[in-house]
Amino acid sequence: MPYLPTAAHSIKLHVELANVPNTLGRLATAIGEAGANIVSMGGFDVRGEVLVNDVVVNCSDDEHAHRVIAAVEALEGVDLDSWFDRTFHMHEGGKIEVLPLAPVSDMHDLSMAYTPGVARVCMAIHDEPARAHDLTIKKNTVAIVTDGTAVLGLGDIGPEAAMPVMEGKALLFKEFAGVDAFPICLDVDAPEEIVETVIRLAPTFGGINLEDIKAPGAFQVEQALKEALDIPVFHDDQHGTAVVTLAALRNSLKLTGRDIGDLSVVIAGVGAAGMAVGAILRNAGVGEIVGVDRTGAVYEGRDELNFAKEWFAANTNPDRKTGTIHDVLHGADVFIGLSGPGLITAADLRNMAPDPLVFAMANPDPEIRPEEADGLAAVMATGRSDYPNQINNVLAFPGIFRGALDAGATDITENMKLAAADAIADSVSDDELSPLFVVPSVFDKSVPMAVAAAVAEAAVADGVCRG
Amino acid sequence: MPYLPTAAHSIKLHVELANVPNTLGRLATAIGEAGANIVSMGGFDVRGEVLVNDVVVNCSDDEHAHRVIAAVEALEGVDLDSWFDRTFHMHEGGKIEVLPLAPVSDMHDLSMAYTPGVARVCMAIHDEPARAHDLTIKKNTVAIVTDGTAVLGLGDIGPEAAMPVMEGKALLFKEFAGVDAFPICLDVDAPEEIVETVIRLAPTFGGINLEDIKAPGAFQVEQALKEALDIPVFHDDQHGTAVVTLAALRNSLKLTGRDIGDLSVVIAGVGAAGMAVGAILRNAGVGEIVGVDRTGAVYEGRDELNFAKEWFAANTNPDRKTGTIHDVLHGADVFIGLSGPGLITAADLRNMAPDPLVFAMANPDPEIRPEEADGLAAVMATGRSDYPNQINNVLAFPGIFRGALDAGATDITENMKLAAADAIADSVSDDELSPLFVVPSVFDKSVPMAVAAAVAEAAVADGVCRG
Repeated sequence: MPYLPTAAHSIKLHVELANVPNTLGRLATAIGEAGANIVSMGGFDVRGEVLVNDVVVNCSDDEHAHRVIAAVEALEGVDLDSWFDRTFHMHEGGKIEVLPLAPVSDMHDLSMAYTPGVARVCMAIHDEPARAHDLTIKKNTVAIVTDGTAVLGLGDIGPEAAMPVMEGKALLFKEFAGVDAFPICLDVDAPEEIVETVIRLAPTFGGINLEDIKAPGAFQVEQALKEALDIPVFHDDQHGTAVVTLAALRNSLKLTGRDIGDLSVVIAGVGAAGMAVGAILRNAGVGEIVGVDRTGAVYEGRDELNFAKEWFAANTNPDRKTGTIHDVLHGADVFIGLSGPGLITAADLRNMAPDPLVFAMANPDPEIRPEEADGLAAVMATGRSDYPNQINNVLAFPGIFRGALDAGATDITENMKLAAADAIADSVSDDELSPLFVVPSVFDKSVPMAVAAAVAEAAVADGVCRG
Repeated sequence: MPYLPTAAHSIKLHVELANVPNTLGRLATAIGEAGANIVSMGGFDVRGEVLVNDVVVNCSDDEHAHRVIAAVEALEGVDLDSWFDRTFHMHEGGKIEVLPLAPVSDMHDLSMAYTPGVARVCMAIHDEPARAHDLTIKKNTVAIVTDGTAVLGLGDIGPEAAMPVMEGKALLFKEFAGVDAFPICLDVDAPEEIVETVIRLAPTFGGINLEDIKAPGAFQVEQALKEALDIPVFHDDQHGTAVVTLAALRNSLKLTGRDIGDLSVVIAGVGAAGMAVGAILRNAGVGEIVGVDRTGAVYEGRDELNFAKEWFAANTNPDRKTGTIHDVLHGADVFIGLSGPGLITAADLRNMAPDPLVFAMANPDPEIRPEEADGLAAVMATGRSDYPNQINNVLAFPGIFRGALDAGATDITENMKLAAADAIADSVSDDELSPLFVVPSVFDKSVPMAVAAAVAEAAVADGVCRG
């Protein structure tokens, strides 16, 4: 069953239509019969015997886009002048730019922004290093650091190929929370080299957002940098996902009238994200958490656990449950999927406790598709934008860094993350709350501001603020 | 003799004046008597018995600014509400920001700029790495890298304190040539660590501008990075200065009717900049070049030369001149100062060949002040903006990187630098050319464009372009 056509695979066609009745109808029909969706058409530009138009068409994948193009090219009275892939077009030349905040229109400006005036500002920082947080971009700038070893679901594609994701993230930081963020894609061979490099880079930045670094190295990197640096360090794949997952869980519990302490939660996938979800759920008071990896349930004493999973095993699964994902789901209240497509089936949901909560977040294809869970799950959430309840880190990371920077925080504590989750959950009003709406829209600009305020308050309460 | 009041030491005063005749006159007189210059006043805001105004005043230094403030506070009928230092004000929060080039106003945009659409762009780069130069900010983005060991004339002030300079540079890159540039201030202990770190960072950038790294380490860093990377690497303190110096020299020769091959040039200061000036003048065909450091003239076989000065000694000073700066200036045609204030005197200029060219570029205070050289030098240039003929790197680096990026250059060659110098020199028309105007204004936007075109052409001619 293919996914529906999406903007991610959309094309823009520049067509000339013969100015005779029904040419447009035949074009629309051809595109529709090819299984694609027309999203928009520009205004018609009539040029005597022809009409010119730009048609945006969503397709399912690359191959589908080429079939649509072939179908249009085959039409009589329709001339396909040119077309482009809208996603690639958007990425051309990169997605961010670096702009001046100070004018340099004459010699007076230049002598303040640059030499000789700048020397005074340099010396002020030299004499009192904390002033770097006020007198430089450190005040508002975060590095988005990756080595490209675990990019989206694509795996180890390397630092150059990771750039478009990091640029996209920078764009979201600015758009949703006014944070200046800059991609730093590192060509390194080991987690230790990431740590070493980021420590060297730190003078420029007010925060470090780690991204798409494969586990378990990512844990070492985050831990080492948190210890070494006096600016906030946050591995978004872990904690961003954990924060939004907890927000969705809190609102789902309101809907189903459960208490968090009574919950039995199964986490499929004990990589970076699964580990962090386990940790935040534990801090939030979830009764039972059982992690499952490719080998089966993770329990204390199991063979071949890496250092991170050892920690996980020691702090979860109190009854030392064993077996496959299907075994441990038996009677569980919540399924949290951070693994791969099609891991579980409707039969598994039927074996869970009544009104199960199913967060199938594998990207792009979830552990179970919403269509299959329909009527079985009390709440169904995914990582996808084309279904309800998208568990999207965009709800968390911009506001978390906004709050940390505003508060002058030197760290991001567990309480700051819990506060962020509560702020996201509370952004859904009682009126709005429904099984199809347990997390707010990522385009609700009040969310990052609420998250920022809650995070800043928690930073102050935890006493991790500078000066 | 103090320097004149400048914008670099300007303050903005918010004053309330009693609405009676001559209050403004007394304020202006008080500021004038304190030796400061009123640059601007805002429109008067009449509020019954008082007038409110903002007065911008240029001062000579911090202490002077405080004297001016005290003088204003002492005036009857004038109430100083508040004041601020305009340079610090301009730097607050940093001088650059990172802005989106792609919209994210709805889910369609998000699914193209970020997941899932971005994955297609990532894989296109993974499959064909050269596409990073088209599909990411690598196309137009330069890292401004320093370790903060030789910042302006301030010395080793460290990476945090160097930030305001690097941000200022980023601002100039964008303003003058549309290049996106980002500061990378490194906390490192050795040139080898700079090299290692920049190699790791390189996937993000389309070029590396090295800045304010002390010699001789800077030479190693540039050399190693040029060899290791397939993107342009340029140490601006060296080559930016060298390019603009050569441009000024070419135009000065036109004025004084000399041939470059006949020239005897003395370079005071054989650090990063002096070394590069020596190299470019040699490539441009200057007859005799003699470098002078604290020990005296640099000649082959002299004791205690570092590896860089050994190269310099072997390639300059063919007659093995020895002695102090005063000795070697005897009969020289050109003095190029890249050392410190007050190194030479009017007597030295009288000992030079007739119509000497004097480029005294020590910053902020030149080797000899223009007032002292008046009537002795045929052309006098400095590094300062408040005298004619400012040898300012801003004339070079934006256009050089613009040209290199436009051409897809993998290196910056000697010919590209020579082409840049010619383009800058040629930007001064024969009509404009005079002893007071041998280099164009840094605000002449046609200069970086001319430099870029010349540099790109030279890159193509040298066969150093990608793809």
